[in-house]
Amino acid sequence: MRRFAKDREWDQFHSPKNLSMALTVEAAELMEHFQWLTEAQSRTLGPKQKAEVAKELADIQIYLIRLSQVLDLDLIVASGRKLSDNAAKYPVEKARGSAKKYTEYR
Amino acid sequence: MRRFAKDREWDQFHSPKNLSMALTVEAAELMEHFQWLTEAQSRTLGPKQKAEVAKELADIQIYLIRLSQVLDLDLIVASGRKLSDNAAKYPVEKARGSAKKYTEYR
Amino acid sequence: MRRFAKDREWDQFHSPKNLSMALTVEAAELMEHFQWLTEAQSRTLGPKQKAEVAKELADIQIYLIRLSQVLDLDLIVASGRKLSDNAAKYPVEKARGSAKKYTEYR
Amino acid sequence: MRRFAKDREWDQFHSPKNLSMALTVEAAELMEHFQWLTEAQSRTLGPKQKAEVAKELADIQIYLIRLSQVLDLDLIVASGRKLSDNAAKYPVEKARGSAKKYTEYR
Repeated sequence: MRRFAKDREWDQFHSPKNLSMALTVEAAELMEHFQWLTEAQSRTLGPKQKAEVAKELADIQIYLIRLSQVLDLDLIVASGRKLSDNAAKYPVEKARGSAKKYTEYR
Repeated sequence: MRRFAKDREWDQFHSPKNLSMALTVEAAELMEHFQWLTEAQSRTLGPKQKAEVAKELADIQIYLIRLSQVLDLDLIVASGRKLSDNAAKYPVEKARGSAKKYTEYR
Repeated sequence: MRRFAKDREWDQFHSPKNLSMALTVEAAELMEHFQWLTEAQSRTLGPKQKAEVAKELADIQIYLIRLSQVLDLDLIVASGRKLSDNAAKYPVEKARGSAKKYTEYR
Repeated sequence: MRRFAKDREWDQFHSPKNLSMALTVEAAELMEHFQWLTEAQSRTLGPKQKAEVAKELADIQIYLIRLSQVLDLDLIVASGRKLSDNAAKYPVEKARGSAKKYTEYR
């Protein structure tokens, strides 16, 4: 991906600001597939729609890695830490069966 | 992550529809860090803001993997394919130094 | 709103690019209220949550007007035209009871 | 807009949850026009791109009004209140020339 951008002289466009916009646009394109579906329908996509959705997930993954590159951040380390944080914020006994945000716990 | 969701009985909330919303919300939270910065400023974050941004990237990564799980899609395969597609859509000689979308090439 | 921005010397930050980011961030904040609700629950908000949602709608409206100002566009004219376009794109006999996009009509 | 939806039997799809997704998707489509432009370029769109942007603003306005309808909220009242709130949160002497969020004021 570094070489891909370098070969095309795209580093000038790949500021974190611009990449965060591009990533959000891709996230919205993913969401567009689901906006008029029921939750149940979104769980049972046909093969054609699933292939389209896979491409959107890939676009997001690619921009996410690219952002980590230009920000010089380790995405795997950051994700591991966040998973630990989430486990602490959402203890099983409080979170079970609840979609509340942890800030709403008493 | 599967166990994390199962232990909390969150599979009921984790429809692809809902997860695509959550992922987009996280992408917007990432973007919020950059919305009033210039592009140049977004390239030179201080350590505190960088740590905040790392958490947002992690949130996106976690939802992305979770979506792949519930959709039973291979994120690595899909990303590899998309990178190849992008290389074909954006040949170096046409893309060099240009931020145009491939659909605008002549 | 023009005076509000001018008094605070915010015109420098209010490029269309930045305002489009801020508007999208507000749209995501609106959506966050609904991400873990069922569609049925989203139709029956309590008074407290409804008041919160009203503030998010207002934020979006404010940025939308502000964007029209800095782009020198007439939002009311544009909306009227789009409603006419939509009526032509989605004729009653084809659109009735269907969430398909017009590009999927045969 | 009420009649438009009713004639097409679209009320079933127009839950606040779904409409908030559609609005966010439109916001992202607006933003897509600006993602690779500099801020300066975003201030000087040509007539063709400006016409495209006007359509995106209209889409957002339409969904915003539709959301207010299905939630039974008064968008004008809510926007007026929010403008007053903003004036109180961002006093001129603190906000002048600063893009800081009010929560960062001392």
